Amino acid sequence: MKSSSAPNHVLVVNSGSSSLKFTMYSMAPEQVLAKGIVERIGQGRPTMNYERIEDKLAFKKPVQVENHDDALRLVCAHLVDPETGVLHSLEEVDAIGHRVVHGRDVFHDSVIVNTQVKETIRECFSIAPLHNPANLGGIEACERVFPGVPNIAVFDTAFHHTMPPWTYLYAIPYEYYEKYGIRKYGFHGTSHKFVSQATAQYLQRPIGELRLITAHLGNGASITAVDRGNVLDTSMGMTALNGLIMGTRSGDIDPAVVLHLVRNGMSADQIDNLLNKQSGLLGLSGIGSGDMRDNIAAAEDGNLQARRAIRMFVHRLVSYIGSYFTILGGADALVFTGGVGENSAYIRALVLHQLACLNCFPDETANQSAIGTPATISTSESRLKAIVMPTNEELMIARETVRLLTVPSVTPPTAG
Amino acid sequence: MKSSSAPNHVLVVNSGSSSLKFTMYSMAPEQVLAKGIVERIGQGRPTMNYERIEDKLAFKKPVQVENHDDALRLVCAHLVDPETGVLHSLEEVDAIGHRVVHGRDVFHDSVIVNTQVKETIRECFSIAPLHNPANLGGIEACERVFPGVPNIAVFDTAFHHTMPPWTYLYAIPYEYYEKYGIRKYGFHGTSHKFVSQATAQYLQRPIGELRLITAHLGNGASITAVDRGNVLDTSMGMTALNGLIMGTRSGDIDPAVVLHLVRNGMSADQIDNLLNKQSGLLGLSGIGSGDMRDNIAAAEDGNLQARRAIRMFVHRLVSYIGSYFTILGGADALVFTGGVGENSAYIRALVLHQLACLNCFPDETANQSAIGTPATISTSESRLKAIVMPTNEELMIARETVRLLTVPSVTPPTAG
Repeated sequence: MKSSSAPNHVLVVNSGSSSLKFTMYSMAPEQVLAKGIVERIGQGRPTMNYERIEDKLAFKKPVQVENHDDALRLVCAHLVDPETGVLHSLEEVDAIGHRVVHGRDVFHDSVIVNTQVKETIRECFSIAPLHNPANLGGIEACERVFPGVPNIAVFDTAFHHTMPPWTYLYAIPYEYYEKYGIRKYGFHGTSHKFVSQATAQYLQRPIGELRLITAHLGNGASITAVDRGNVLDTSMGMTALNGLIMGTRSGDIDPAVVLHLVRNGMSADQIDNLLNKQSGLLGLSGIGSGDMRDNIAAAEDGNLQARRAIRMFVHRLVSYIGSYFTILGGADALVFTGGVGENSAYIRALVLHQLACLNCFPDETANQSAIGTPATISTSESRLKAIVMPTNEELMIARETVRLLTVPSVTPPTAG
Repeated sequence: MKSSSAPNHVLVVNSGSSSLKFTMYSMAPEQVLAKGIVERIGQGRPTMNYERIEDKLAFKKPVQVENHDDALRLVCAHLVDPETGVLHSLEEVDAIGHRVVHGRDVFHDSVIVNTQVKETIRECFSIAPLHNPANLGGIEACERVFPGVPNIAVFDTAFHHTMPPWTYLYAIPYEYYEKYGIRKYGFHGTSHKFVSQATAQYLQRPIGELRLITAHLGNGASITAVDRGNVLDTSMGMTALNGLIMGTRSGDIDPAVVLHLVRNGMSADQIDNLLNKQSGLLGLSGIGSGDMRDNIAAAEDGNLQARRAIRMFVHRLVSYIGSYFTILGGADALVFTGGVGENSAYIRALVLHQLACLNCFPDETANQSAIGTPATISTSESRLKAIVMPTNEELMIARETVRLLTVPSVTPPTAG
């Protein structure tokens, strides 16, 4: 950051174990300049997707990268290349916002990265072994490629830190929370926060008076009860395994099933792989895909297992909607977001047809035409509105980055 | 059974690992003649409680028994003793009904015990290691003490066999169900069935038109969505660990917590003990008791952990009520049963005060005076009625015993 004014050019990075997703923002006003993803890093035959928004320049090509540093340097070269670029120089990048999956109970908010922050993200490795190492790798790559540029960590768990203890604690001895941090954390927080705010804006009502049920339905899926801007409860738990049925994850299951499998000789890694990678729609339908579109296509072709998988997905979702409606003491709106939530009128219709008892009635025409755009898909007499609201986690991360680098210091005032 | 007429004297046995509970019925009309329990069998200093109903004779005394056979013989001696007895001779016992906890997916109904049935109950040991061995032990003791008298097994899981596959399956690969029987079974079925029928009778409506939410709240606790006589969903799972917060059981918890504990060096037995015996109200409150009465007393004394434990118990219960209300497409009645459900106006009030959004409003006076008796505890304008309905699993087992020994054979008709 070259001045004390608000940062304008913000790079948002979502670093996975073999991928690096990026979005280059200009923030005043908010606009995407370029975005893309490098995939299959370290897996052989890596590729890059790159898109410049202004002129819709877009390409995908094989690339030569060995690691995340290489991938980031390649992205940067394209960002400043006269043919493909959107910046004159990398020095125009004011700040970098990073998605970090797990912040345990340490990070209640986004944070400017320093040595201590990195150490704490590292301490979360055991509780989020798939994501946090890759997220930290992305931060460290940026430190090398952009020396002196501030990195901001935005946690998937942070929004859920507004949950009260009586919903985030598990009913196990309290010491397991105190000593080992075993509690509900919740994930997709950046998305749930974004769509909560966007829905308040869409309804032209202050978020402080709204009770919302936000359903983020993608390959991963979670649902959150948002009580006047604060999370009251959420379906994911200590990890992202719990809750709704997902593409490849089981969601809720009797924990004794895990014990049963251990006693039958399966290792923790095997069970982890079973429940996180082989279950959900993939495991139920047996069609070799956990993608909802493939499962809907198979169901429409008459595949009975795929039909049952979808029925189970919808049943679990309707169960949670009823649960969250009730703990909220009634809700103003049910919000669909994420790839499935934004685009699948089919799934939304199946859900809405079961919500008459909550005074929510589908507007079929509105539902069919709401594809990836904000829309009300319930009839006007519905007391519980159903809304489609596209999420934008990258923009939320960019906004958080600006917020952290703009607001006055939050350190407590000292005497004197 | 000495004749082909319906059995009249039915002994109901609930055999635990160190206890033998009995109820001696005369069934035409239904009345309890005597009941009691032998406890601490094989643990040193065993005792027997015995009660004769007609004249309210009741005593508790230390007894000399080494095993369940001894205990049963002692009970029998008292049942025919001129001082304490209710029968002239043991030959008057027409049939014996047994509680058996787990019937896997084999027993969809109560069954007359034979060699094959015992073998199958034995096959369920691995899935119900605490209960099924003790239940089978009780059956075998009765075979020795009452040679020639039919034994009927009544399964806690049987009523839940009316669940459809899309609610009893977990979202894991289908082969884990087919090969290993991993699915939701549900428990307390005998109680949920009894109170469903009793509620229909109380409301003077056919069970075939009622949608009920039955909450069995005792030391163990479960809740069931009963759709016109059939179970639509229930909170316990493959085992009795899942679902509501219980006296010492965690109920729902991210299954990844179990994996986390395994990776941190705990054995399956240690985790099983933690989640089944050290968790729930006991683990949360830290007051050394999982009994709801003790926890309420502690909470009223200002113990903050006990208050939070109760708040969590109620939150989980309200969540499930909302969930089941919604999957049922609305419900006619919420039924409270079990020790806590029948007797704790305090807990019921906390629950009912959160159900206005489901059009259920507490009648405070009715709630306070409904202690162990059938009663409506919601106001007359409530669309969802709240009802207290005492359960009677023993009577249900006796009725099942009579039904199985009276109805025409259920084997399929053969050609000819």
